[in-house]
Amino acid sequence: MCRFLLYKGKTSIKLAHLITRPAHSIINQSFDSRLRLDTLPVNGDGFGVGWYQSNPNTTSTPCIFTSITPAWNNQNLSRLAEEIQSSLVFAHVRASTTGALSETNCHPWRFGRLMWMHNGHIANFNKIKRKLQQSLRDELFLFVQGNTDSEWAFALFLNQLEDPINGQFDHEMLKIAMLKTIDQLNNWAEEAGIHESSLLNFAVTDGHSVICTRYINSRTEEAASLYFSSGTRFTEYKPGHYKMTKADKREDIVLVASEPLTFERADWLTIPTNTCLVITPKLNVLLFPIKDQFYNIHRVKKKCIFFNSCNE
Amino acid sequence: MCRFLLYKGKTSIKLAHLITRPAHSIINQSFDSRLRLDTLPVNGDGFGVGWYQSNPNTTSTPCIFTSITPAWNNQNLSRLAEEIQSSLVFAHVRASTTGALSETNCHPWRFGRLMWMHNGHIANFNKIKRKLQQSLRDELFLFVQGNTDSEWAFALFLNQLEDPINGQFDHEMLKIAMLKTIDQLNNWAEEAGIHESSLLNFAVTDGHSVICTRYINSRTEEAASLYFSSGTRFTEYKPGHYKMTKADKREDIVLVASEPLTFERADWLTIPTNTCLVITPKLNVLLFPIKDQFYNIHRVKKKCIFFNSCNE
Amino acid sequence: MCRFLLYKGKTSIKLAHLITRPAHSIINQSFDSRLRLDTLPVNGDGFGVGWYQSNPNTTSTPCIFTSITPAWNNQNLSRLAEEIQSSLVFAHVRASTTGALSETNCHPWRFGRLMWMHNGHIANFNKIKRKLQQSLRDELFLFVQGNTDSEWAFALFLNQLEDPINGQFDHEMLKIAMLKTIDQLNNWAEEAGIHESSLLNFAVTDGHSVICTRYINSRTEEAASLYFSSGTRFTEYKPGHYKMTKADKREDIVLVASEPLTFERADWLTIPTNTCLVITPKLNVLLFPIKDQFYNIHRVKKKCIFFNSCNE
Amino acid sequence: MCRFLLYKGKTSIKLAHLITRPAHSIINQSFDSRLRLDTLPVNGDGFGVGWYQSNPNTTSTPCIFTSITPAWNNQNLSRLAEEIQSSLVFAHVRASTTGALSETNCHPWRFGRLMWMHNGHIANFNKIKRKLQQSLRDELFLFVQGNTDSEWAFALFLNQLEDPINGQFDHEMLKIAMLKTIDQLNNWAEEAGIHESSLLNFAVTDGHSVICTRYINSRTEEAASLYFSSGTRFTEYKPGHYKMTKADKREDIVLVASEPLTFERADWLTIPTNTCLVITPKLNVLLFPIKDQFYNIHRVKKKCIFFNSCNE
Repeated sequence: MCRFLLYKGKTSIKLAHLITRPAHSIINQSFDSRLRLDTLPVNGDGFGVGWYQSNPNTTSTPCIFTSITPAWNNQNLSRLAEEIQSSLVFAHVRASTTGALSETNCHPWRFGRLMWMHNGHIANFNKIKRKLQQSLRDELFLFVQGNTDSEWAFALFLNQLEDPINGQFDHEMLKIAMLKTIDQLNNWAEEAGIHESSLLNFAVTDGHSVICTRYINSRTEEAASLYFSSGTRFTEYKPGHYKMTKADKREDIVLVASEPLTFERADWLTIPTNTCLVITPKLNVLLFPIKDQFYNIHRVKKKCIFFNSCNE
Repeated sequence: MCRFLLYKGKTSIKLAHLITRPAHSIINQSFDSRLRLDTLPVNGDGFGVGWYQSNPNTTSTPCIFTSITPAWNNQNLSRLAEEIQSSLVFAHVRASTTGALSETNCHPWRFGRLMWMHNGHIANFNKIKRKLQQSLRDELFLFVQGNTDSEWAFALFLNQLEDPINGQFDHEMLKIAMLKTIDQLNNWAEEAGIHESSLLNFAVTDGHSVICTRYINSRTEEAASLYFSSGTRFTEYKPGHYKMTKADKREDIVLVASEPLTFERADWLTIPTNTCLVITPKLNVLLFPIKDQFYNIHRVKKKCIFFNSCNE
Repeated sequence: MCRFLLYKGKTSIKLAHLITRPAHSIINQSFDSRLRLDTLPVNGDGFGVGWYQSNPNTTSTPCIFTSITPAWNNQNLSRLAEEIQSSLVFAHVRASTTGALSETNCHPWRFGRLMWMHNGHIANFNKIKRKLQQSLRDELFLFVQGNTDSEWAFALFLNQLEDPINGQFDHEMLKIAMLKTIDQLNNWAEEAGIHESSLLNFAVTDGHSVICTRYINSRTEEAASLYFSSGTRFTEYKPGHYKMTKADKREDIVLVASEPLTFERADWLTIPTNTCLVITPKLNVLLFPIKDQFYNIHRVKKKCIFFNSCNE
Repeated sequence: MCRFLLYKGKTSIKLAHLITRPAHSIINQSFDSRLRLDTLPVNGDGFGVGWYQSNPNTTSTPCIFTSITPAWNNQNLSRLAEEIQSSLVFAHVRASTTGALSETNCHPWRFGRLMWMHNGHIANFNKIKRKLQQSLRDELFLFVQGNTDSEWAFALFLNQLEDPINGQFDHEMLKIAMLKTIDQLNNWAEEAGIHESSLLNFAVTDGHSVICTRYINSRTEEAASLYFSSGTRFTEYKPGHYKMTKADKREDIVLVASEPLTFERADWLTIPTNTCLVITPKLNVLLFPIKDQFYNIHRVKKKCIFFNSCNE
């Protein structure tokens, strides 16, 4: 399984503060993933980062840098991360489950102004791949360049939007498209008699709003971990060690990550399993439980092994 | 467009004699392609070579080495080519028309004991991609890892065989499957109203027989160039300069190539447009005209610019 | 041999306008180099681009992106070039003469705020490599990561500066260091009895001034080609076709390139062989003949094959 | 730090049995290195394997395949390992300490018929790099293409041989050259006042004999781990699980590895710290203590954490 991270802020941040400098950045997580559900210990199968210009307008498309060599030893990434600033960043390290090691299989992907990444996998994807492809409009069927469940899920998401290339979006539209995507995947899984659960932590943005899910199509299991943190400043108090500062209860920064980026326990809140998190253009953070057939208010919470106790 | 080369011999040859040493090897052709129909002058978008052990048995699968860095500066290729010997070799340099630069998009591909490569492109492939995919059995639909017309054409070829993974093949079966593949592509092109011609120089082998086509779905145009040469020994008479020796009219070696490997005019025969060439396990070379709706005995032969005159 | 390009402007330019969009950009030059002195027709052995933030201050270091896959099919480069803007850009495509294909051997290199690239080669570099290394201060001897004459020449240049990492530079200091570098290379070549000529088109910048040479250590031969163009705007008048606009005789933009970027003959001036070109922080362009033992006012000018006639 | 493995046998083995198939192969070790002395948990910075033809003669040179993408997801490696058989194999996974991620920095290296790899690092190599280079004959100074302490140590080793390119070697000559190499490195370390210890597990072969060291220039510390195993057959008793069979006490196979390849405790003997292991052409295994100033018969043995108890 993979790891992802996203940042949205009122002001832009140097990518290095998110990606390369923190001692527990997703690059270092790619070495040592303490919260992984699976046993494969390394996320070394490629890397990607996507970002928007600091003041995206209604036509801004994200820029994406991907690599098939491990993130921890990539000179281009190190140099770009020290140079580029952005107020909306997605980053992803990959441990391949399906799809060969190639740049076309690295997250995030973009389509027009939209950007997408996925942490998890669609169970028995081979059994629903044909149906998914057949449901797509031609432009979206032909858009996919790689061979991963995650990129096809992006195409399925795009297919829920009326005009994914030129349309105007708002966070409500994007949230509805996201929930429809998950619902559709669940329906196909049921039709195909798939019993293994899918881990569907998705993130999508149009450069203004962000929609992010922590989801599993199971009433009892936990989804892959997901945390968020918000505040006014994300600062390095000693080399490699960062903390979130909260002044005046304002929220100028929102971080969402598969694992906490800092060792400050109070900085991070667990996003409950089967939740849709929305970050509005004005940086309000909204959490919605996803109330489908897998909704279960009594789900036994998995013991949180990163912190001494859980924040839920 | 790309370039390919294949060798089948009674004895094995060091790959270097085919790939890296000849002054007009396909690697050097990747610099300077004088016979190319298109205007893009470089085949620098990846490389692949596949070969069988020297004495393949009925279960031998080919070994394949591919690379996304140019063939002319690939240390692994240089070293492997000096080391590996084989009596059946496919080699391919790629100039991408569709499909990103990734190892999964490099020719040749293998499926079980079968190996495939393509020089050319399927015109308006996007218009027939869905139909092609829908025609495939599940194992073949799911087999494709990349995103090129050429690999999907391989899947279509495999779909013509009853049991492509475990079956026993002979050159007649493989030839029939090849002709069905071309016929199917032509039918879909017609249904889709595609007027641009497809260049379908395909090569396939099971380790024993080789089937190779020079084909275009047009009554008037010429297909991409294709030559063959046969003899008893392929020898280097001075550094980088090779010639085919013919002793006793025996044919111990057959070479087929997009462009002649040597500067010896008499060594190479042009394979006529819309021909299927078969090399039998015993190294007999058979040429069959492909007599479909595009067969035209009066096709105006394109002026041969590599030799002073043509060998046809 | 390689190809390079540099841009310095009062305002920043999107990298795409220099690198990926022009029909005769250095990437397309990497396919088809009509002005090359050697016979190797392809610059496919890696690529690099370096740039400063739009308003560099006295501590700004350049950002560098390099790649060992060909520039013409590099998705990261295409995306970054559409996103990044800079007022000082170096770009380089490599055809390897020495040094393996590796990112550490790709130009440009940086040291602190300084950035360097080279088009050409140092003749018989192996005969002077030890002397060059022994002349270097430890920090510079250890700085070199690759194995090319060009990177060692950068170290030699840095060695001429009193404090290359923290010092303040001006264009006069950098010019003197450049001329000392060439002089030193000439002395070692003479000591080693090297008769082949070295092609020393170097470019260096501290983010404010640019020093660039067109040089050969021969009284009769021509150096590798080098052109410059200046004006007020560099604009795309139809897709892929650019021209330099000159309003009010102001010089807001200076371009220097191994080959003209546009097909507008009047836009480009040939920099004479054995000349040092200086671009000051205020964008004045100064040309100085390099009056050493190879200075020859009667050098027979090589016929200019790119334009109908030369601009000199 | 890195990991290495070497195999020498009377008969050839398919590379897959050493490299890709064993559950605790060095590729899987590159995920999960339980015996590492340092804390960096991943060997993901490149990979290399070198081998000789099955019946090397006095002019056979090794073939080397290296890669900068991680070994665990390298399709070329997977396919080659299933195809290639050899009776003398070196394999290495790298976790970079010095030298950028590039193929020129991947072990093993070859020079003529000789092949070399290193597990460990030369402490403060920057302080002795100049002296090492100055000690080398020109051909060896110029031979080095990368930028690692390990490749320079190979050049130093070659410099101890009278004619490393054309000479005839025997295991005694190679052993003497190895010990001189270590002695020379120790002398330079002392001259430079270096107090940190160097980990010098080296392996070299001419295709016939193998010399391998487990060494540290310290009287009290332990060198990096090194094990060997010998027997008549190395067989897979269930998928991914191998064991060494010993029939008739013959030794037809010798394996040396940074970590045991199998989970069979009795198969593996620890090579004591500061020992030189020699495998003769006839597969005799000789262990010599290296009796220099760091020899210490009372060295406190490090607790063996891989096995329940140690074999020493």
